[in-house]
Amino acid sequence: MMGHFLTFEGPEGAGKTTQARLLADWLISQGQEVFLTREPGGGLPWLRGALLQTPHPLSPESEYLLFSADRAEHTLKIQEALRRGAWVISDRYLDSSLAYQGFGRGLDLAWMLQVAEKAAPLKPRLTFLLDLPPEEGLRRAREKNRFEGLDLSFHARVREGYLELARKEPHRFIVLDATKPLEFIQEEIRRAIMPLCGF
Amino acid sequence: MMGHFLTFEGPEGAGKTTQARLLADWLISQGQEVFLTREPGGGLPWLRGALLQTPHPLSPESEYLLFSADRAEHTLKIQEALRRGAWVISDRYLDSSLAYQGFGRGLDLAWMLQVAEKAAPLKPRLTFLLDLPPEEGLRRAREKNRFEGLDLSFHARVREGYLELARKEPHRFIVLDATKPLEFIQEEIRRAIMPLCGF
Repeated sequence: MMGHFLTFEGPEGAGKTTQARLLADWLISQGQEVFLTREPGGGLPWLRGALLQTPHPLSPESEYLLFSADRAEHTLKIQEALRRGAWVISDRYLDSSLAYQGFGRGLDLAWMLQVAEKAAPLKPRLTFLLDLPPEEGLRRAREKNRFEGLDLSFHARVREGYLELARKEPHRFIVLDATKPLEFIQEEIRRAIMPLCGF
Repeated sequence: MMGHFLTFEGPEGAGKTTQARLLADWLISQGQEVFLTREPGGGLPWLRGALLQTPHPLSPESEYLLFSADRAEHTLKIQEALRRGAWVISDRYLDSSLAYQGFGRGLDLAWMLQVAEKAAPLKPRLTFLLDLPPEEGLRRAREKNRFEGLDLSFHARVREGYLELARKEPHRFIVLDATKPLEFIQEEIRRAIMPLCGF
């Protein structure tokens, strides 16, 4: 028996963490095993702080390689949970790097995918993209981390990147309007996973 | 004007640090600018401790990606020094990862080289391989770090890996018998760099 791997993507402030938690709670209430996890830090917890708050700007190569090191370890934990038959819900995975370091910072996507062949070999069954105009995302973000320090055009590139990834894989991505009410979005998410639910 | 990039490779205890320092001292005494550096930690100093002493065993993928993140930043510093015309002497570079994570831990070398295209784009002008039988290397090693905790067969694979890398690039590698006296080895190193010395 194999579980299902679901990811949440989108900018800070779009409600990924809240929606992931609501979905996890609901699945648990249905008697399901859930592994709720997040990046960065899902694989190497000690890296999370360094990645979110390093005072020195890293080159995009180095930044991506650190995220990938974390993701390689994270993937092992996810695979283990999937083998147990758990639902794995991750707040960010490879698409975040493609959007932020790739589309946002201009790192070569072909090279990123080569690295990901071993660092992120899993493909999520469904990816919920909480889409938000960059102005709104910046306004909403409460946590202050260095990604939010970057300018509006960076966040606009990240958003366009996410939407392009979603266009390329329409069967994996569910694009959700993150300006809609929280309950409405959660409803759409549950509807989307229904075909996967054997209970 | 471009400087020269030299690396020292080999197991712990072979004398890399000592030989690198002696060479740097001599070049400085000749009025040369020298950037003496090392890995891990040459790019992201805060990673060195984590890489040498992490209590949890990392997957070889994650380990290599962390070394690569450090190396990507390190490479930027090396390139800057080379542009100033400095001699750059690094205690370990990409060959260490190929030997330890590749030959030693079995990580796919083709994938490692793809990652290295952006993480380690520099090719050293000369690489001094201080070759030592694994038994002798383990005996000599004074610093205790987790690499030394691995068994003798691991160290034997690392040594064979280094020698194979050297066979593939005979114009870059200078293989030195690290059981010889320190002064004798330093003599060989200086003789090898003579053709690069314009002073």
